[in-house]
Amino acid sequence: MSLAKTAEQIKTMEIRGAGKIAREAAAALRDHADTLPKAGLAAFLSEMDAAAELLLATRPTAVSLPNAVHLVLNGISAAETEEEARRLVKTQADRFIQSSTDALQRIAEICAARIKDGMTVMTHCNSKAALAGILLATEQGKNISVIATEVRPWNQGLLTIKTLNDHEIPTTYIVDSAVRTFMKEADLVIVGADAVTVSGAVVNKIGTSQIALAAHEARKNVLVAAETYKFAPQTLYGQHIEIEERPASEVLADDIAETLPFVTVRNPVFDVTPARYIDLIVTEAGAVPPAAAYTIMKEHLAFDDLERS
Amino acid sequence: MSLAKTAEQIKTMEIRGAGKIAREAAAALRDHADTLPKAGLAAFLSEMDAAAELLLATRPTAVSLPNAVHLVLNGISAAETEEEARRLVKTQADRFIQSSTDALQRIAEICAARIKDGMTVMTHCNSKAALAGILLATEQGKNISVIATEVRPWNQGLLTIKTLNDHEIPTTYIVDSAVRTFMKEADLVIVGADAVTVSGAVVNKIGTSQIALAAHEARKNVLVAAETYKFAPQTLYGQHIEIEERPASEVLADDIAETLPFVTVRNPVFDVTPARYIDLIVTEAGAVPPAAAYTIMKEHLAFDDLERS
Amino acid sequence: MSLAKTAEQIKTMEIRGAGKIAREAAAALRDHADTLPKAGLAAFLSEMDAAAELLLATRPTAVSLPNAVHLVLNGISAAETEEEARRLVKTQADRFIQSSTDALQRIAEICAARIKDGMTVMTHCNSKAALAGILLATEQGKNISVIATEVRPWNQGLLTIKTLNDHEIPTTYIVDSAVRTFMKEADLVIVGADAVTVSGAVVNKIGTSQIALAAHEARKNVLVAAETYKFAPQTLYGQHIEIEERPASEVLADDIAETLPFVTVRNPVFDVTPARYIDLIVTEAGAVPPAAAYTIMKEHLAFDDLERS
Amino acid sequence: MSLAKTAEQIKTMEIRGAGKIAREAAAALRDHADTLPKAGLAAFLSEMDAAAELLLATRPTAVSLPNAVHLVLNGISAAETEEEARRLVKTQADRFIQSSTDALQRIAEICAARIKDGMTVMTHCNSKAALAGILLATEQGKNISVIATEVRPWNQGLLTIKTLNDHEIPTTYIVDSAVRTFMKEADLVIVGADAVTVSGAVVNKIGTSQIALAAHEARKNVLVAAETYKFAPQTLYGQHIEIEERPASEVLADDIAETLPFVTVRNPVFDVTPARYIDLIVTEAGAVPPAAAYTIMKEHLAFDDLERS
Amino acid sequence: MSLAKTAEQIKTMEIRGAGKIAREAAAALRDHADTLPKAGLAAFLSEMDAAAELLLATRPTAVSLPNAVHLVLNGISAAETEEEARRLVKTQADRFIQSSTDALQRIAEICAARIKDGMTVMTHCNSKAALAGILLATEQGKNISVIATEVRPWNQGLLTIKTLNDHEIPTTYIVDSAVRTFMKEADLVIVGADAVTVSGAVVNKIGTSQIALAAHEARKNVLVAAETYKFAPQTLYGQHIEIEERPASEVLADDIAETLPFVTVRNPVFDVTPARYIDLIVTEAGAVPPAAAYTIMKEHLAFDDLERS
Amino acid sequence: MSLAKTAEQIKTMEIRGAGKIAREAAAALRDHADTLPKAGLAAFLSEMDAAAELLLATRPTAVSLPNAVHLVLNGISAAETEEEARRLVKTQADRFIQSSTDALQRIAEICAARIKDGMTVMTHCNSKAALAGILLATEQGKNISVIATEVRPWNQGLLTIKTLNDHEIPTTYIVDSAVRTFMKEADLVIVGADAVTVSGAVVNKIGTSQIALAAHEARKNVLVAAETYKFAPQTLYGQHIEIEERPASEVLADDIAETLPFVTVRNPVFDVTPARYIDLIVTEAGAVPPAAAYTIMKEHLAFDDLERS
Repeated sequence: MSLAKTAEQIKTMEIRGAGKIAREAAAALRDHADTLPKAGLAAFLSEMDAAAELLLATRPTAVSLPNAVHLVLNGISAAETEEEARRLVKTQADRFIQSSTDALQRIAEICAARIKDGMTVMTHCNSKAALAGILLATEQGKNISVIATEVRPWNQGLLTIKTLNDHEIPTTYIVDSAVRTFMKEADLVIVGADAVTVSGAVVNKIGTSQIALAAHEARKNVLVAAETYKFAPQTLYGQHIEIEERPASEVLADDIAETLPFVTVRNPVFDVTPARYIDLIVTEAGAVPPAAAYTIMKEHLAFDDLERS
Repeated sequence: MSLAKTAEQIKTMEIRGAGKIAREAAAALRDHADTLPKAGLAAFLSEMDAAAELLLATRPTAVSLPNAVHLVLNGISAAETEEEARRLVKTQADRFIQSSTDALQRIAEICAARIKDGMTVMTHCNSKAALAGILLATEQGKNISVIATEVRPWNQGLLTIKTLNDHEIPTTYIVDSAVRTFMKEADLVIVGADAVTVSGAVVNKIGTSQIALAAHEARKNVLVAAETYKFAPQTLYGQHIEIEERPASEVLADDIAETLPFVTVRNPVFDVTPARYIDLIVTEAGAVPPAAAYTIMKEHLAFDDLERS
Repeated sequence: MSLAKTAEQIKTMEIRGAGKIAREAAAALRDHADTLPKAGLAAFLSEMDAAAELLLATRPTAVSLPNAVHLVLNGISAAETEEEARRLVKTQADRFIQSSTDALQRIAEICAARIKDGMTVMTHCNSKAALAGILLATEQGKNISVIATEVRPWNQGLLTIKTLNDHEIPTTYIVDSAVRTFMKEADLVIVGADAVTVSGAVVNKIGTSQIALAAHEARKNVLVAAETYKFAPQTLYGQHIEIEERPASEVLADDIAETLPFVTVRNPVFDVTPARYIDLIVTEAGAVPPAAAYTIMKEHLAFDDLERS
Repeated sequence: MSLAKTAEQIKTMEIRGAGKIAREAAAALRDHADTLPKAGLAAFLSEMDAAAELLLATRPTAVSLPNAVHLVLNGISAAETEEEARRLVKTQADRFIQSSTDALQRIAEICAARIKDGMTVMTHCNSKAALAGILLATEQGKNISVIATEVRPWNQGLLTIKTLNDHEIPTTYIVDSAVRTFMKEADLVIVGADAVTVSGAVVNKIGTSQIALAAHEARKNVLVAAETYKFAPQTLYGQHIEIEERPASEVLADDIAETLPFVTVRNPVFDVTPARYIDLIVTEAGAVPPAAAYTIMKEHLAFDDLERS
Repeated sequence: MSLAKTAEQIKTMEIRGAGKIAREAAAALRDHADTLPKAGLAAFLSEMDAAAELLLATRPTAVSLPNAVHLVLNGISAAETEEEARRLVKTQADRFIQSSTDALQRIAEICAARIKDGMTVMTHCNSKAALAGILLATEQGKNISVIATEVRPWNQGLLTIKTLNDHEIPTTYIVDSAVRTFMKEADLVIVGADAVTVSGAVVNKIGTSQIALAAHEARKNVLVAAETYKFAPQTLYGQHIEIEERPASEVLADDIAETLPFVTVRNPVFDVTPARYIDLIVTEAGAVPPAAAYTIMKEHLAFDDLERS
Repeated sequence: MSLAKTAEQIKTMEIRGAGKIAREAAAALRDHADTLPKAGLAAFLSEMDAAAELLLATRPTAVSLPNAVHLVLNGISAAETEEEARRLVKTQADRFIQSSTDALQRIAEICAARIKDGMTVMTHCNSKAALAGILLATEQGKNISVIATEVRPWNQGLLTIKTLNDHEIPTTYIVDSAVRTFMKEADLVIVGADAVTVSGAVVNKIGTSQIALAAHEARKNVLVAAETYKFAPQTLYGQHIEIEERPASEVLADDIAETLPFVTVRNPVFDVTPARYIDLIVTEAGAVPPAAAYTIMKEHLAFDDLERS
């Protein structure tokens, strides 16, 4: 697929999901490099810069996209020959794609290790990584049960309980308001992440932060499953993670909303859970406390190269 | 309406709502006394005891019902004549009905006094008393706005925003998961109550306790609007308030639920908010800290007479 | 002194201080009653009502003034004869004056009992009651030392350290910013109060709430010395205690302020310390936890008679 | 038994235990009154005063003893005739003895009501009231289990586990250091009390306060079983509860201690648990939050009569 | 300027301020190296060691001074030739001077990114870095306002509000005692730092720790602006940061103090804010959570070379 | 000593203690390498792998053992020649042995630096490193005193107070239940560690976590003395540290236990103190906050090589 096409599909959300976007962008850069004629280092760098810009412009608030682009192009401006630069792009793209593909399995293994026999795990929304950990623990022969929330307004909880039911895992399904009541029956909370900041705060599906707060109140551990490409190094330079807000009609039908001119529906997709309510962030490189977010960024995101905006 | 009929209608939930049940029960006892032939004090007491038992059996877990019954019959066994006993029943029934009818307005006045010009009030569910306070503050010329939750699974939030819209009060409508996110925009939380325990804990619509927790975290004050007949003196003797659980189908459609044998839907109607997350309980007798629940019971519920079970 | 004159002097602040205002108002009502001709109960009540209104209008935000007026006139409208009403006014005025005069000594005795030999007491501002307790503990032969704050912008701390120096009590004098640093050397905090709300919150000199917060953080006990007439029963009905704000020039000289048009000086006299940071409120009737504020009001302020505004 | 003999036996600790001391003192006063010749009201009062002083001097730091004495003699100085005074002494002594005898059963009933089927209860030391509640819950057919501590240096935990074993209640026995580790397996903590202060703090066997702290951390409820005569009204006037310290040899054998001149053994018998770590204090008059301690004293200890020292 | 002269001026405080001291020391070492005759590596190292000792002795408790000295001389003892050692000194001195000069601007950029349009920022004392961030946010077109404290005893707040007024930023000026009251109107706190320990604690102007405590209580974020040379690697080896104490006369005029022999004035310049009250430490290398202090030291202060004392 | 013999002695606990086990294992590997005939790189690696497995199997739950083994063998599989691999083993074994031998002294130096003159230090159990710090502070001329616990069921506190007595350090000896009572007299807590997890939690003698909790409540700092080889990198991959449980008879004599069939004695040796109750972990590489555990592992344990199980 051409770079332009990949960019287009990311923009129109045909390509969706933090991991998929990142991998497709990495592949597009790698393949794009192959299409470029050998025209000297300067020309190559300039073309790749343009390619990066094109991709980055498609989803300006994404976190995994710039991480993938930077990891693929990391260090090429210091290359001494065009060949070296091309080799770097190819190697780094392949390495990123492989490592991001393996990440889910490695995270699942660590999450499963944290789940002891007999535990009840509470989860929210429909995190692939969190679910993978739960399913793996079950495969390991542990008897566990799950408490899953409804997740208004999209009811992704339904997807979650279907998966759990398919694997014959006893599951309790509750409305989002019932989280604090059922927290006393949970032993562990596992959720996913859309982004992790330098202070170890986690951006995830709306509702996550109040589950984490209730878990903290009840002294239950909270695990966040997050690939390293979810970490947002731009927060090191003070940038905020922008929280997407979706249409009101997802919450309140338009025909009712029209009759209520003094009512405004607010529908943010994510919220921010502070580091103090999180015990471990489980990445493919290991489970670390939120305070290690800065170190994880250093080790895995090559962010020293990042332009500070 | 005959005592039997009132009892029947309370049982079948034709008569609903803590206040209405209490007033109808008081009236039924008063009117029942009138139907009894003059047959001596002992006979009268015995008949009234039977009447009380009949009423109390209709909703064994209600709080306002035994309060009404006990307040109406309070002290009659110490009466020296049948006439005195009859007079007591009538006076006490009328007084209870009047005071419980006035309570809403008095609570609204106190709540309105706590709402300052420019404030944003968060509320949950559809508490008459909380809404009355908000409307009154608006009538007093204060510019206030409201944040109202959806309140799954029954979406009573819809009733709330319709009322607020009718009074042209700017309102933000959010899903229950978004409470912690929007707490930073609220200045005050006002909710209702189904019951108040001797330790000042409040039983109210599921979700209340996590709103109170989020308010506590953000140092926002929480007011609970609760008539004195909502206080549960039986908790002084160690009794628990039983939490009603409603049908699973309210949360998950039966046809889906049937396909998910490993999934159990749990649907409790209420949760318990501990006293430490509540600033003031606003009763018709004044706004008191939760620690005064015991004193309020002593002053308003004549519970020294209560049988301890 | 005539009622009019007393009212005038309270208004012009010739009569100042919560205790003095209260006692003078009580005396003025008592003496005013004596000047009224015998003209029947109705006339007497009407005259006393007018007198009360005149006094209450002088300082609409005071707390001790309405307490004194209500305690003096408590129950007279239920009197059956003019004589009885007159007797009530006299008895109740005398009792209030006596009890409020004795209060300081009784509070000092209780505070002194809480101060153990060898303790270091931190105090703020220049509370007569707090100081009396410290001096009495010293007289009892206990070796104690004191940490006193400067108390900007009026530097009342200077008065405090002079008194302590006169009694040869070793005292450390610090700026208000140093409170948290020196809290680790304190064993106990004792402050005064201007008003106490129904929830047990204490209104006192600006800075008190951050001292209490620092004490709470360091697990040091906070005693508040407050006569019962400092309790504000109107807060039971939702009323706020208004915080007086003094001229900017006390903080920043006018000639400098004039050169800084974008700068606003804010100079509130009091702040509000929440009940959770206070261990005991020491009244002349005993030392009680803040949660007992409602009971103290009931027992000592006859507030059932209060008009709810 | 003569007053002198009772006094002697209290002093020598032949009569021991808060309840027993209180009841024996009440009986001694009652019986002593009978031995006094009719010699007029003044003489009677004077004799009874002397009797009270004799008893009070035997254990100056006890709490139940002065409560018993004051409740028996309450109001007699206001009696109009010697007969009335004598009648008061007799009635009040009998009432106190009866009510204090019944208290254990009533407290057990309330504690048992708080213990739900399937719960694990942690207890410390060997509180009769706490144990009675646990045994009663078992008799009611609830399946419960208990975690009991060793309670160094006297190992009273041994008595506790023997009683529990006799009633076939599954019990886990742990060293005092393991409390926090096992708190996660407990649902409820029940302990006794030696004294309750006006602020709701509880004086009990050393170790209680750290159990309560660990329970608070883990959000487990703490019940304190305490008869009303354990409440210490003198704390209202600022008095401290003195903590008894027992011989070093109970902790470290003398022959070892002698070889360690730089080591001091400290062996306090009690510690103080602050009110904020206690959920309910269970008295024979009901289960109340610690903040109600002041009200309980008012209602049950007639302390308005108390001399303030 | 000669090394001796620079040392002298640092000692007499002609050269003042953490940044200026550090840069002047770096320049002095660099220039001193140039003055040394070529006499072989060993001689050069020995001379530079002596130079370092001379500088370090001028302000034994400073933090930036040893950081500068160590960064300039880092690794020279491992050089293989005199030339290499000389080159290292020059390069490292220039790099340190440049980076420390740029630091203010980079910190300001990050702080400005954290300040959103409409925010109210509270600041304390007169931190150049904190102010630079506020001014930059204003230049970026954001409407912000500031709350500034008086900062007794030197009233540096006056300097702050003058700067803010010059830039037409609406500012509220308050006494230090009013911090907790006005915290509810602040959205963000930004302060400077004199030193940062390995545990992420911040040493700054007295009063900072109680502002941070009040911010924590109200869940407002606290940013600390601190160049990396403010980090104190010696704390890794257990050393304490010494807190300077200034003359009593700054707080209390000598003529008054003389009349108060029992009064001691204490006037520490700094206090210590624990890491748990700080959200981000903003360095020129990025904004990191306090827990990253150790990593920042490793990356920027070359402290592995440090002698441990 | 042969590898087989060392393995045997570790297994039978002739070789005991985290440090000793680690050093003996390192020496055994080094010496074992010497006994192997030169047979090519592949053969050498295979033999050393087998040796590692033999050692690791002796104590599967130890922490220091795998750390030593991995540090000794780190990188040998990447060696290009047998000689290089052999050299690595020798160098790394010697370095580990040396550094682990020096660690105690370096930790003691840092601990001593944190102990100020006049401080009272609380300690638990019989940690060599903690005691070394206390003794060194005393040698430095500081007047300090110690509070030491009994440490049931083995009473290791006795060893501690004997050592302290020998050094003439004033020591208070208390039962484990008295920790919270005496915490107010302590200025600092120092304990040892058996293991440190990636989140900075500390596994140590049962009772440590409740001491740390009580210290946290009273705002006293907690230092944990832990050599870097106590850090458990396997926790990065989700593994739990297994808590050993010792025989019941250590707590309750068998003859008594036999009479109590419903009583189970639980006797875990360690508990887990969460990172939030610990201020600094003192390693031979410096004192770091618990959040730096991940970085310490990276720097000192070469854990990238570790097999993830």
